[in-house]
Amino acid sequence: MPTSTDLLLTNAVVLTMDKKLTLYEPGAVAVTGDSILAVGPDEAMRREYTAKATLDCGGKVLMPGLINAHTHVPMTLLRGLADDLRLDVWLLGFMMPVEREFVSPEFVRLGTQLACAELIRTGVTCFADMYYFEEDIARTTAEVGLRAICGETVLKFPTPDAQSFEESLAASREFIIRWKNHPLIIPSVAPHAAYTCTEEILRACAALAVEFDVPLLTHIAETASEQENNRAAHDMPVVPYIKKQNIFEAKVLAAHCVHVDDGEIHTLLHHGVGVVHCPSSNLKLASGIAPVKPMLDEGLPVGIGTDGTASNNDLDMFEEIRLAAFLAKTASNDPTALPATQALTMATRMGADALHIGHLTGSLEAGKRADLILVDLSGLHNTPRFCRTREGVYAQLVYAGKSSDVTDVMVNGQWVMQSRELLTLNEAEIRSQAAVYARKIDAFLAEREQSVLSKLVAIGGAEEEESFEVQVKVRIADPAPVLAALEMPGIEVLRSRHYHEYDTYFSFDDPKQGHLRYREDEFIEPNGQVSGARYRLTHIGPARERRFESDVLLSRSRFIAPATHSLRFYREYFKPSGEASIKKDRLRWRVLFQGTEFFINLDHVEQPDWGYFIEVKSRTWSRRDAEHKAELATGLLELLGAPPEEAVAQDYVEIIER
Amino acid sequence: MPTSTDLLLTNAVVLTMDKKLTLYEPGAVAVTGDSILAVGPDEAMRREYTAKATLDCGGKVLMPGLINAHTHVPMTLLRGLADDLRLDVWLLGFMMPVEREFVSPEFVRLGTQLACAELIRTGVTCFADMYYFEEDIARTTAEVGLRAICGETVLKFPTPDAQSFEESLAASREFIIRWKNHPLIIPSVAPHAAYTCTEEILRACAALAVEFDVPLLTHIAETASEQENNRAAHDMPVVPYIKKQNIFEAKVLAAHCVHVDDGEIHTLLHHGVGVVHCPSSNLKLASGIAPVKPMLDEGLPVGIGTDGTASNNDLDMFEEIRLAAFLAKTASNDPTALPATQALTMATRMGADALHIGHLTGSLEAGKRADLILVDLSGLHNTPRFCRTREGVYAQLVYAGKSSDVTDVMVNGQWVMQSRELLTLNEAEIRSQAAVYARKIDAFLAEREQSVLSKLVAIGGAEEEESFEVQVKVRIADPAPVLAALEMPGIEVLRSRHYHEYDTYFSFDDPKQGHLRYREDEFIEPNGQVSGARYRLTHIGPARERRFESDVLLSRSRFIAPATHSLRFYREYFKPSGEASIKKDRLRWRVLFQGTEFFINLDHVEQPDWGYFIEVKSRTWSRRDAEHKAELATGLLELLGAPPEEAVAQDYVEIIER
Repeated sequence: MPTSTDLLLTNAVVLTMDKKLTLYEPGAVAVTGDSILAVGPDEAMRREYTAKATLDCGGKVLMPGLINAHTHVPMTLLRGLADDLRLDVWLLGFMMPVEREFVSPEFVRLGTQLACAELIRTGVTCFADMYYFEEDIARTTAEVGLRAICGETVLKFPTPDAQSFEESLAASREFIIRWKNHPLIIPSVAPHAAYTCTEEILRACAALAVEFDVPLLTHIAETASEQENNRAAHDMPVVPYIKKQNIFEAKVLAAHCVHVDDGEIHTLLHHGVGVVHCPSSNLKLASGIAPVKPMLDEGLPVGIGTDGTASNNDLDMFEEIRLAAFLAKTASNDPTALPATQALTMATRMGADALHIGHLTGSLEAGKRADLILVDLSGLHNTPRFCRTREGVYAQLVYAGKSSDVTDVMVNGQWVMQSRELLTLNEAEIRSQAAVYARKIDAFLAEREQSVLSKLVAIGGAEEEESFEVQVKVRIADPAPVLAALEMPGIEVLRSRHYHEYDTYFSFDDPKQGHLRYREDEFIEPNGQVSGARYRLTHIGPARERRFESDVLLSRSRFIAPATHSLRFYREYFKPSGEASIKKDRLRWRVLFQGTEFFINLDHVEQPDWGYFIEVKSRTWSRRDAEHKAELATGLLELLGAPPEEAVAQDYVEIIER
Repeated sequence: MPTSTDLLLTNAVVLTMDKKLTLYEPGAVAVTGDSILAVGPDEAMRREYTAKATLDCGGKVLMPGLINAHTHVPMTLLRGLADDLRLDVWLLGFMMPVEREFVSPEFVRLGTQLACAELIRTGVTCFADMYYFEEDIARTTAEVGLRAICGETVLKFPTPDAQSFEESLAASREFIIRWKNHPLIIPSVAPHAAYTCTEEILRACAALAVEFDVPLLTHIAETASEQENNRAAHDMPVVPYIKKQNIFEAKVLAAHCVHVDDGEIHTLLHHGVGVVHCPSSNLKLASGIAPVKPMLDEGLPVGIGTDGTASNNDLDMFEEIRLAAFLAKTASNDPTALPATQALTMATRMGADALHIGHLTGSLEAGKRADLILVDLSGLHNTPRFCRTREGVYAQLVYAGKSSDVTDVMVNGQWVMQSRELLTLNEAEIRSQAAVYARKIDAFLAEREQSVLSKLVAIGGAEEEESFEVQVKVRIADPAPVLAALEMPGIEVLRSRHYHEYDTYFSFDDPKQGHLRYREDEFIEPNGQVSGARYRLTHIGPARERRFESDVLLSRSRFIAPATHSLRFYREYFKPSGEASIKKDRLRWRVLFQGTEFFINLDHVEQPDWGYFIEVKSRTWSRRDAEHKAELATGLLELLGAPPEEAVAQDYVEIIER
């Protein structure tokens, strides 16, 4: 007696992408509810199953939907915003300012719709995403009907949806609880990267992922400088460093891994980490070529991702699969490396394994969810077709196939595209709404073209951002008590420096432009000799973020860059409306006070003749930490003999301008 | 008074791709006859021109057609024939045997039609081709209506359309004379590469190109081993080597240039050479990444090509342009390298310059031929569009655009595609004919799976092919006169060697399989000690190519490979039906006789006990040269005291089997 099924897909070249790469030509697939009931040869399947509905696939390829294992879907709205730029200029000059200004629940909903439309058109049924307002991304994705792993990005900086990492973490916890058992959405935890998180953040994220047994998404070793900086700061590469923060206790999905050595590959393997190769993004940002062949040879599950469209500039997995095969051949100097079957496996079954959802999707096997696509290989660019070997059809898909060959897409048993028509999205509506955003962003950036910061960025400045700083400054009559206090127990001096600082502040008619400081430091040796000089340019934002008791401040945004040009050059380039000079003699100490690191500056402002100031500073990345450090700073000032109640709220330049 | 024009294309984003990258938005282009009459802002153009026909471009991008600067169009019929293989296995095991069997005028006509259809669909209006039966390729291309530089490939091996290079050269001369003034076809001369031509061939090709002032197409420094081998053989890199053969006296278009150093780049620049970058092909065959940024920085015109589809596997220039930008960034570790404007210039104006036809095409400028395309950037994968900067639209085309966005294509003032419909080709017909070829080739290869040569290739053998050899062998009673003759003037001994040779010949039921020889050589020092051993496998084809007077032979095809396995392994693997062993003591001299190099073997065949043979051999690549050497060989034999009239026609194994 035949078994009944909801839907029988017949007369297809069925690539199951199972472990044996079983291929049925012609083959058929039976779908019941959200799942695959059976897969097999066409004739046998027709005999064994009676279906409520049958679809003749007309000889098309029927295969698992592609898995885009790393992306940031709402960034699709920023596609083509700025290209061919240095990473710092692109990120600090364009992406971050635009995200700060525009990213909202409405923005991410539209961006997710736009991305989902493109993903469906290119044969993707499942993706892994990390961005902001992830709740809205998840809801939109579920409405469209795609499968996704979603993680709210956690950073040490303020983000468009959180003032501090504690807020992001709290939101992540609620997000996980709400979505834990959804049929399409797998919630996750997404600390951005080692270099954008603190150890505390990494540990907290790992603990959260373990607590709820959800995946943890992060970026690992994307650039050579990330590795260099990590070694400089922590004396070890990125992988062992984050291992120390317990990251690998979670089910990790690691994007990029461009600069990992054999030892790190081994560590990733040992801890069951899934890796995502993002070839276009790595090439376009000049990050390098990931050692994919060595990773695969070791047995690591490596998926393929597009990354966000801001660095790609599309979500076309066909391109990424082909590039993955191409790059592995060139990187290993071996044209047999990463053959078509393996490349396609990475984008399907292995991608699902990397995402830790191999039990759900990634291949056409009885019991897995019905996530599948139809691909028409009859186009001219696929002509002719050689059938001599089983490998032929995989090679055709990988080396000649195009995303536009995808005609039908089903996720979880539901069609989301049929005969190239999207069933759950209104393309025209998305396009026109996206155009409205583009016009707004264009206008915002065009206006900003006048701004000091953008001009700084435009000449390659703004390497480093200092967002948050606890800072308090007090005018003192006599420096002697300070020097004496530093000899006392309670303050441990880690390092001291002495320099002359010559600051020139540019000011502008529009006070929102903030100030630009050209700073020349002469380093003074204990014997009074000048041992060197440093020239820096700092853009100081116009407003403080927040103010605490006793005028202990979280400072404004600061962009610092080496000043490679002369003061004259910057004066001509920025055309300031005002200029002020300050000369001071500074003694600077890095100290440990009650277990916390502070910088103490003892400034003798010689020109104008203002006398002495004592400044206490500490970096911070969280609100709670800032409050704690503000309290400590007050205690430290008292210990140094400076009355905190006489704190000066302004920067030196503001005192001058007063 | 308005000027009249045949056609006015209005309301477009006009990218002229001229030297200033002039952009009109909205803009218009006036076409009269085969040429561009004027380009300018939409409104002004409408005022200035009255047109017999007007086409509203609806805001699409209107730009010069793309130039595919290196391909082999008929190979489109071999797309996907064999992928993910070592270069030697791919070339010797698949491409060359299939080409020998199938390439005919009919094959190249169909292949050219298939390629032209794909080229038009991907926005290409002009391509540079080198293959066989180039006459038929040119005629087909002209019928379809595309512009092309066509060159008949010249090689030292026999080709599908020529038994020797003299034939190819003679055909090239006639081809050039016939097509010299055609409006669409630019005939050229196409010596395949330094390593597949002799010095004589290179010089002859250069002279022919100079005589008719036509371009010369060739491959230069595609792989590292090409450079290594050239240095080993000629003590210099490829570029100075071919310069010595006068190649650069012609207008050269050099494909690949992956492994060229700064000095070679300088030489190319000095001689006005155009270079073609083929990123997909170079990646897929693991050839490497060409130093495109250094070449561009030096001022070399570098175009972009797909290469043949057998190593790509498509003719999609959008992919190549994007890859060119991506690879330059990664190779130079600089994301600002090769920005979108420059990448698109390489595929248009600079490509035309590289092809030495910059005066005809490559940009939308008054007086140039009307080779242009319309590109629809309204697709989802191109959404949104930022208009803040002029660079935006170029970046959109390069990083997000797809070949399927091309809607209309005009060549030489004639439409070949409108609204995605091909006007000069029947796609369905091409597809069905191509399918017939694919079935035949599949059958041919499936049958050949049984063959000895293919099995040899399958295990990574067959590194080197010796096609043509002048060879004559005479049985002698006494070796003494030979040894004496070698002391006489007239023969200059360049080198001598002594070894014991143990040959095992496998034979097969089907005589067409030829023989497989497992050969073990023991090298003997003057003191009689064995100084080393060498193990080689040689496949000896079944039939001689040609026979001359006095049994001086052009030998059969030979594939030689190091034997890395044991005799037992090969016996089991090849399952020969017969086996024969020969042991001989061989004295071998490399000599100069009347200015020509010969090898002389004095063989003492010890087992079976056949006595002495004297063998005279010389390599050759042309019929005329072979006849000359055959005459010399006869004279040399006489000088050695061996009567040429007693020459033995067979190989040793054939004597055994007789």
